[in-house]
Amino acid sequence: MSDSLPVFEEKISQAVDTEIKNYINSLSAEIHSDLGDIFRYHLGFNGKEERKGKRIRPLLTALCAEGAGTDWRFAIPTAAAIELVHNFSLIHDDIEDNSEQRRGKLTVWKNWGLPKGINVGDAMFASAFHLISSAKNPLSTEIKLKVLELLSETCIQLTEGQQLDIDYVERDNINKEEYFRMVEGKTAALIACSTRMGALIGGLDRKDQEFYSQFGNYLGIAFQILDDWLGIWGDPRTTGKSACSDLIERKKSYPIILGFEKSDRFQQQWHSGAVSGEDAQVIADFLIEDGIRDMVEDEYLLWTKRALDKLEQMNCKDEMRIILKELSNKLLTRMR
Amino acid sequence: MSDSLPVFEEKISQAVDTEIKNYINSLSAEIHSDLGDIFRYHLGFNGKEERKGKRIRPLLTALCAEGAGTDWRFAIPTAAAIELVHNFSLIHDDIEDNSEQRRGKLTVWKNWGLPKGINVGDAMFASAFHLISSAKNPLSTEIKLKVLELLSETCIQLTEGQQLDIDYVERDNINKEEYFRMVEGKTAALIACSTRMGALIGGLDRKDQEFYSQFGNYLGIAFQILDDWLGIWGDPRTTGKSACSDLIERKKSYPIILGFEKSDRFQQQWHSGAVSGEDAQVIADFLIEDGIRDMVEDEYLLWTKRALDKLEQMNCKDEMRIILKELSNKLLTRMR
Repeated sequence: MSDSLPVFEEKISQAVDTEIKNYINSLSAEIHSDLGDIFRYHLGFNGKEERKGKRIRPLLTALCAEGAGTDWRFAIPTAAAIELVHNFSLIHDDIEDNSEQRRGKLTVWKNWGLPKGINVGDAMFASAFHLISSAKNPLSTEIKLKVLELLSETCIQLTEGQQLDIDYVERDNINKEEYFRMVEGKTAALIACSTRMGALIGGLDRKDQEFYSQFGNYLGIAFQILDDWLGIWGDPRTTGKSACSDLIERKKSYPIILGFEKSDRFQQQWHSGAVSGEDAQVIADFLIEDGIRDMVEDEYLLWTKRALDKLEQMNCKDEMRIILKELSNKLLTRMR
Repeated sequence: MSDSLPVFEEKISQAVDTEIKNYINSLSAEIHSDLGDIFRYHLGFNGKEERKGKRIRPLLTALCAEGAGTDWRFAIPTAAAIELVHNFSLIHDDIEDNSEQRRGKLTVWKNWGLPKGINVGDAMFASAFHLISSAKNPLSTEIKLKVLELLSETCIQLTEGQQLDIDYVERDNINKEEYFRMVEGKTAALIACSTRMGALIGGLDRKDQEFYSQFGNYLGIAFQILDDWLGIWGDPRTTGKSACSDLIERKKSYPIILGFEKSDRFQQQWHSGAVSGEDAQVIADFLIEDGIRDMVEDEYLLWTKRALDKLEQMNCKDEMRIILKELSNKLLTRMR
């Protein structure tokens, strides 16, 4: 009988954390700077009760590998590397977005200064590739090389999405197509990479891998739309952000893109300048009255359905398909 | 008969540039942002007469591959990736050092802003790994994987050297050992990687690769000491920097480290505050009178000799050993 989702979550996140910790320790033996300490700080390895991030991506990789027919343990170095890539991108994003806090503590650049913020991100990026290429696991060299090719290609997609996101800060007239292009790079690409890696490590062929990739891609888009929904209508007590935070920070999130397209009074309010807490509540209500929230929810349900349909079609062991469905539902219903 | 050094230089730098240009074009077909354009700008691919950097590292890789017994053309994707890594590190260093100009034009961050400066560097970093892992060349998968392992390990050394360099900005009491540790990471590691890659691609064993690595390491250290010499006593007409620039910018270069250790009046001047052009000339003369310049030159000659001795001992075709010696001498006597 297969493990339940909570048991998998516990085992996999422990295995990933152990892999990363051991890797950092092996590095620390050779270095004289504070790189290792800053890695541990950012990854939440310093205290027992620290918030560490949800380890969603490595969980998907390991579960997909098991679903594709291999032992999830074989996927751990790759899953750990994906988590390092995710975290490197957070370290740099925090600088690019001028964010001072993450997971309840100061961001790396805020704590150690801009130069080290950039450099530690670079070091973590390099570590992801080094961890995979130097791992002593039973993957064949062919598979390892394909893993590295997919991971590096995904990193280019990530930077492409980020580049568009930076461009959009200066622009108001973003259309839906442009929004989805940005989200596919910034959010969905690494999740699609995570699920595809499982299929690749499990030895499935390109066509089967493509299904896993699409499952992750759709899941990632639904995930981002939900995140955008929560950024305006989420409950501050559960999201940990202020009410209507995306309106106040003037993010180009999905409800806001739609607001531009569909609601004249939203547009007027937006152009009247900076949005304070009170205005934000008014604008958030405009968006509901003008049907924008319903449209966001429809779009979210559409991508969720696409993801779950793709999961049904994937070449995947049935007991793991059930686990992946449970995980998807959990990810897509968080914190409402 | 083998080509002469100038013919090799011409052929190899053209092949490397073509490899990188084709790679950027293949990327550009899939992206919608300005990543490709900024890559071309930074790499000097926009104008005919642009300064492009010296392509020293790919030249060393290709020449060492030929010396190790294979065709230098097989080393071109790897050589191109090393050049991309070098250039990604320049893009980020320019932000970390707050530099506004490079190769006679604005740095990437100065031209496109800080967020894009960081992100384009990340994209170029990822491209280096993608270029190698996706290259359709006749290297075996085993060799490609080792190339990726060595390159990623070297990137960690680069960031380690950079991390120390950032630390040293705040400190005056750097000793020689600390200086060399920083230089081995920041400068020598990527040059040692370049020469070792040639041996690896040429199919030589680990012991032989180690000789190539040490040749590059010593060459890199000598190169950096020369650069430090030029930063104080170089002729502004040939270095392109202002006279005594490292004194004015208060860099922790080798003459300055020695000045701290050996010259009381240098220390006093340094601690008296910011150094202007006139003071700088006075301090530079103190360093000569107190024997520091002679010591820097001795150290430079020592590492040059070590590099050339190692070159003699390397498992290398004799006609290529001659070419590599010629290149080393050229690199180590530039611009006096």
